[in-house]
Amino acid sequence: MEYDIAIIGGGPAGYNAAERAATNGLKTVLFEKNAIGGVCLNEGCIPSKTLLYSAKLSDNAKGSSKYGINLEGTPSFALDKIIGRKNKVVKKLTAGVRMKLIAAGVSIIEGEASVESAKEMICIVCNNERYNVRYLLLCNGSDVMIPPIKGLSTIDYWTSKEALDNTTTPQSLAIIGGGVIGMEFASFFNSMGVKVHVIEMMPEILGAMDKETSAMLRTEYTKKGISFYLNTKVTEVSKTGITIEQQGKANTLEADKILVCVGRKAVLNMPGLEKLNIELRSNGVNVNEYMQTSNPNVYACGDITGFSMLAHTAMRESDVAINHILGIKDRMSYDAIPAVVYTNPEIAGIGKTEEELIAGNVRYSVLKLPMAYSGRFVAENEAGNGLCKLIINEQEQIIGCHLMGNPVSELIVVAGIALERKFTVDEFKQIVFPHPTVGEIIHESLFL
Amino acid sequence: MEYDIAIIGGGPAGYNAAERAATNGLKTVLFEKNAIGGVCLNEGCIPSKTLLYSAKLSDNAKGSSKYGINLEGTPSFALDKIIGRKNKVVKKLTAGVRMKLIAAGVSIIEGEASVESAKEMICIVCNNERYNVRYLLLCNGSDVMIPPIKGLSTIDYWTSKEALDNTTTPQSLAIIGGGVIGMEFASFFNSMGVKVHVIEMMPEILGAMDKETSAMLRTEYTKKGISFYLNTKVTEVSKTGITIEQQGKANTLEADKILVCVGRKAVLNMPGLEKLNIELRSNGVNVNEYMQTSNPNVYACGDITGFSMLAHTAMRESDVAINHILGIKDRMSYDAIPAVVYTNPEIAGIGKTEEELIAGNVRYSVLKLPMAYSGRFVAENEAGNGLCKLIINEQEQIIGCHLMGNPVSELIVVAGIALERKFTVDEFKQIVFPHPTVGEIIHESLFL
Repeated sequence: MEYDIAIIGGGPAGYNAAERAATNGLKTVLFEKNAIGGVCLNEGCIPSKTLLYSAKLSDNAKGSSKYGINLEGTPSFALDKIIGRKNKVVKKLTAGVRMKLIAAGVSIIEGEASVESAKEMICIVCNNERYNVRYLLLCNGSDVMIPPIKGLSTIDYWTSKEALDNTTTPQSLAIIGGGVIGMEFASFFNSMGVKVHVIEMMPEILGAMDKETSAMLRTEYTKKGISFYLNTKVTEVSKTGITIEQQGKANTLEADKILVCVGRKAVLNMPGLEKLNIELRSNGVNVNEYMQTSNPNVYACGDITGFSMLAHTAMRESDVAINHILGIKDRMSYDAIPAVVYTNPEIAGIGKTEEELIAGNVRYSVLKLPMAYSGRFVAENEAGNGLCKLIINEQEQIIGCHLMGNPVSELIVVAGIALERKFTVDEFKQIVFPHPTVGEIIHESLFL
Repeated sequence: MEYDIAIIGGGPAGYNAAERAATNGLKTVLFEKNAIGGVCLNEGCIPSKTLLYSAKLSDNAKGSSKYGINLEGTPSFALDKIIGRKNKVVKKLTAGVRMKLIAAGVSIIEGEASVESAKEMICIVCNNERYNVRYLLLCNGSDVMIPPIKGLSTIDYWTSKEALDNTTTPQSLAIIGGGVIGMEFASFFNSMGVKVHVIEMMPEILGAMDKETSAMLRTEYTKKGISFYLNTKVTEVSKTGITIEQQGKANTLEADKILVCVGRKAVLNMPGLEKLNIELRSNGVNVNEYMQTSNPNVYACGDITGFSMLAHTAMRESDVAINHILGIKDRMSYDAIPAVVYTNPEIAGIGKTEEELIAGNVRYSVLKLPMAYSGRFVAENEAGNGLCKLIINEQEQIIGCHLMGNPVSELIVVAGIALERKFTVDEFKQIVFPHPTVGEIIHESLFL
């Protein structure tokens, strides 16, 4: 069979690309070996947000007397029901994606694709069928990274996948890795009453995110009972305990369960990948600003590039790739990619961090307000902590924004637009934010 | 005493103007006869949002079993505690405003100001002191409008002010006027278990807002037990009942309490206002695009203009007025003023409505998606209803956006930026929205 384009992988990059390609007249075939929706829909973003929302309802119910709402007793949770609902949400959303793909005219092939040859046409084989295509888009995604910790293979640990599907909670949980995924699980299991330990190799949780908001979040969760071990390596695990090492000193931790959250790595083991003769970088497929690999007919988007590892980056990249194939002017920019941590409270950031600018010896200024300057935040957060920080360059443009406090996941895109469109402070001041909203804090900060 | 500028009224227009003026070097005096913060902070936006948040917590607690969170019994509310907390929030925020004004160097005078004369300098008198100023900014605000309904003056009815300060709930409540304020109270008292009747003269609730989202909201609240009477006039009220008239047919309603929410009117009774010799329009002070009245040294902002009656409009107007006095290039535009209804679910709109465009015979197209296309919305709303509607002109620019579903109050500004900056659909597509968020639905709609 002949197609204009084959897309390998039905996650956010792949399903988005397939829909855009087919809608724009390309004859499109999409290969998926596991489940349409990819990690994001099936065992990542959406399942975790479903669980986290139940956790938030539980947190809110526990704190509701401060707002004049009285409950009898303390709320309890039915984890089997929470997981069951998560499965229902996933089913509904993946069915929606499949329906949209079919409506757009995409051929969906369930099975593992391999590259047979790559000459003028590229030949893909799947379920013993041959597909000859002009363009190939690799959206193979990523896999959980398993660190080489002594003893890990001998015990029954969780990765994010198992943690999302378990219907009983351990008494205590040690999370190896305090990045975004680790912190979201820490938040969930803390709300479910589990004693949580977070072990992080670096001096602060949440990797490259703004250190001030990361530290504030850590303080909030320390108050809620999570134990953090920073600058700490796990050197060995066994059924009886976890050996950690901090500044050369060894110590032991006990936990009923271990959850490994040290990151994800690009999937580069597709059969026949080497026949495409494309350049790789250390951790993924190398691409230019049009998402084109060193083979001009082969594109790669999403986690397989090993770069951003975020669903929304993947979707934007796949728009760019399809636009390039269609001859529509577009290019990928990573200047305004938001990062969100769906803890309670949420934190979110975009653009430059102070740490980055200091390291690069770049001059900048900071406009910063506590969330308590937002009337709505005060109305909705009894003794809640939060921050709005804008980073401004010497041309008075907004080049970074870092926020803590609900619902900043939904607000960060406002700063994103300012970054992407290079708004100056004065231009941004002219935007009317509705009153009272939490988002107003961004506007108010501009007048400092 | 001499000042560069006198500002009458310490609501959002006045306190914002005073802070900006003083920060920019103008010697500024602010007169307030009631309470700093104005209606918005003391008996409007902020108090109502505080109450509505308690109501939302109660709604969420009642529905939490659907999300796997189990509560014993049904949540009850302590209205005295809710009102007490509201008073605490108001106190905190008004104290914050006062502190900022003092820090900026504003002289705050508590008392009723009157105009003594307006020659080269304008002379204001307050508490028997004379203040000679170069510029005068009128931010006198608005008052509740009381409709001439037979019998109303003989009964003990509520306006928004009393409804926000009562610590007992009636068994049933008839709200005269289904506008934004009426609907927010309807939502609150419905959550508190009160039987609510909403009586609206027009064929639909919520005035000039998009009819589709307004009707959807009405349907949601009909399901929750509110009775709506559209195209209906109240002709008489008495202690025993309310006489309504619908299509010429009279009927009687019973309710323990009546809440009058038919709108607000500009305050134009300041002593000596006539000495300024400024032009009025039918319902307020006439101003140009710099918020200047027909007397070039007198400006007017906020509800006294009788125009938009929204706190965020008032704040933007006062930025424009102060900028004009300072010689900074700026002008007021009403193209991108968001309107928000803080019901549960919220609705929000900005820019053109279909009704307006049809009436004006303007060609437009609509991009529309149910909120169920947002993964996060599905994760957080079990069987929740919602809508995203974008209105596009023939130049492919976004000229309107109408949303229903939480938290659209915080999202509408995203469309606001697109409107204000005249984004085309293709330009807006390049913005990366974080995944998963409810806000993504705006982005997804662009690809229809």
